Amino acid sequence: MASVDTISILGPGLLGGSVALAAKARGCAEKIHIWARREPAVDQIRELGIADLASTDLAEVVADSQLIILATPVGVMPTLVSKLLELPLSRATIVTDLGSVKRNVVDSIDQLLLSAGSGLRFVGSHPMAGKEQAGIEHATADLFQGAACVLTPGRSSDASSVEQVREFWRALGCNTSEMHAAEHDEAVARISHLPHLAASLITATALEDSPSFGSVAGAGMRDTTRVASGSPEMWAEILLENRSAIAPALSLLRQKVDEALELLEADDHEALRRLLQQAKDLRDQLPSPPPPSDVD
Amino acid sequence: MASVDTISILGPGLLGGSVALAAKARGCAEKIHIWARREPAVDQIRELGIADLASTDLAEVVADSQLIILATPVGVMPTLVSKLLELPLSRATIVTDLGSVKRNVVDSIDQLLLSAGSGLRFVGSHPMAGKEQAGIEHATADLFQGAACVLTPGRSSDASSVEQVREFWRALGCNTSEMHAAEHDEAVARISHLPHLAASLITATALEDSPSFGSVAGAGMRDTTRVASGSPEMWAEILLENRSAIAPALSLLRQKVDEALELLEADDHEALRRLLQQAKDLRDQLPSPPPPSDVD
Repeated sequence: MASVDTISILGPGLLGGSVALAAKARGCAEKIHIWARREPAVDQIRELGIADLASTDLAEVVADSQLIILATPVGVMPTLVSKLLELPLSRATIVTDLGSVKRNVVDSIDQLLLSAGSGLRFVGSHPMAGKEQAGIEHATADLFQGAACVLTPGRSSDASSVEQVREFWRALGCNTSEMHAAEHDEAVARISHLPHLAASLITATALEDSPSFGSVAGAGMRDTTRVASGSPEMWAEILLENRSAIAPALSLLRQKVDEALELLEADDHEALRRLLQQAKDLRDQLPSPPPPSDVD
Repeated sequence: MASVDTISILGPGLLGGSVALAAKARGCAEKIHIWARREPAVDQIRELGIADLASTDLAEVVADSQLIILATPVGVMPTLVSKLLELPLSRATIVTDLGSVKRNVVDSIDQLLLSAGSGLRFVGSHPMAGKEQAGIEHATADLFQGAACVLTPGRSSDASSVEQVREFWRALGCNTSEMHAAEHDEAVARISHLPHLAASLITATALEDSPSFGSVAGAGMRDTTRVASGSPEMWAEILLENRSAIAPALSLLRQKVDEALELLEADDHEALRRLLQQAKDLRDQLPSPPPPSDVD
């Protein structure tokens, strides 16, 4: 997306705030507007100085925006889009989002836009970045540097809107790819949601009976369970939103736990070594972490 | 342990090599000797220049050593101790080890030393440090900086030998604690071995059907599965050596996977949020990672 006049971000969280900072730092827009539902959040955005306009007035925020970014929990997005449809937006406006789960959201929003005949185009996005600390006060301009960002075009997308959203994320430092929304949800169930839930289950298994065992924790335990420190509220929502894809993955994990138990009980060194080797081969093929950022 | 004349390290791996570098950098010994079973390993140690003497001749290596450190796989340690008992060692010599599992080893070595009436004292150690890259070429002097090190005194330990081994690890930068060997094995089953095995199972679950899903992996997946890149041979040995403590922990994990599946299927947001919150509370109580090292 060539630099535009105004980008509006709806939702004042870590991700929305980081998009604001990154878009400003990279010169993607002249003006950044942020909408928040509550006045204290608006006050906080103003204090942090990370937007040119912050308001609870949706019409004021999105007026003259070329790109509107939904940065709320996914459950709220269709309602927000319904409200956008009541406003006099230009047909050139593109809407995208930051949600971790796509199929239901893309279907709902496409349905709303196409029924309304508004001409608005929606292109789903999932920038795969975050950190344990929630809240806009932890937003950083380099959060998306080197991150994967999956675009999930739907029925209201066209080639031009997909291209513009892709350029926007590339300008923020992301490596972009495209998937069908259902394929995306399957992939993140395996690659993101399963590891997250498993990290929480491992933490509980390791520590709930004897929290004092934590005194001998090393880097292995810390890394394996790091994501269990994420927001319970946000993750409960994500896990349930994508439960139809996560449940089969979790069942497969249970099956593998059973297999490992059998190998331990059988004292089967060779089969256990082979299991660990196969996992190592898969792990070693993961893409490398992104290089250090070149913006602050 | 006050600085001694000679420390012998039996076994030429990542940990043994790192003890050699750290002990030298911290001035713990005048001379570091390393024993290896095979000549190519001896050649490598000489090329790396990380010992004052490297040899396959056990008698030559341990002569005049005040501290002998068993740095081989745990299965080999009792045999090595039997060989030590054939050599004319001073009764002041203290033996320790670097093994990740303690009960069987401590029992076996104590039995050997006490039956022989040698006067040698053994104090088990488990410095909780390591990295994915095995091999002495990856050894570093700061590997133990800030690491937890658990001492597991046994029947051949006395207060003086425990104190000297504790001082040795503290000099290398470790935070030391003491446990009974069985208690240690239970703690590491939960805090180290379970997370390791689970990381391998998560990796296989996430990727074996669709390795291409790895293209959307972010920091969460990378961290949660990092330890799955460890040595399959070494970890198969560790997991089987400690299987009596790991199997119950793995059974408990399976039970928690079942509970999570039920919550997903019931779409029970509040119970899932509570499960994630409890795990977060436990995770947030883990001790912080060690500060950056002050030696290279």
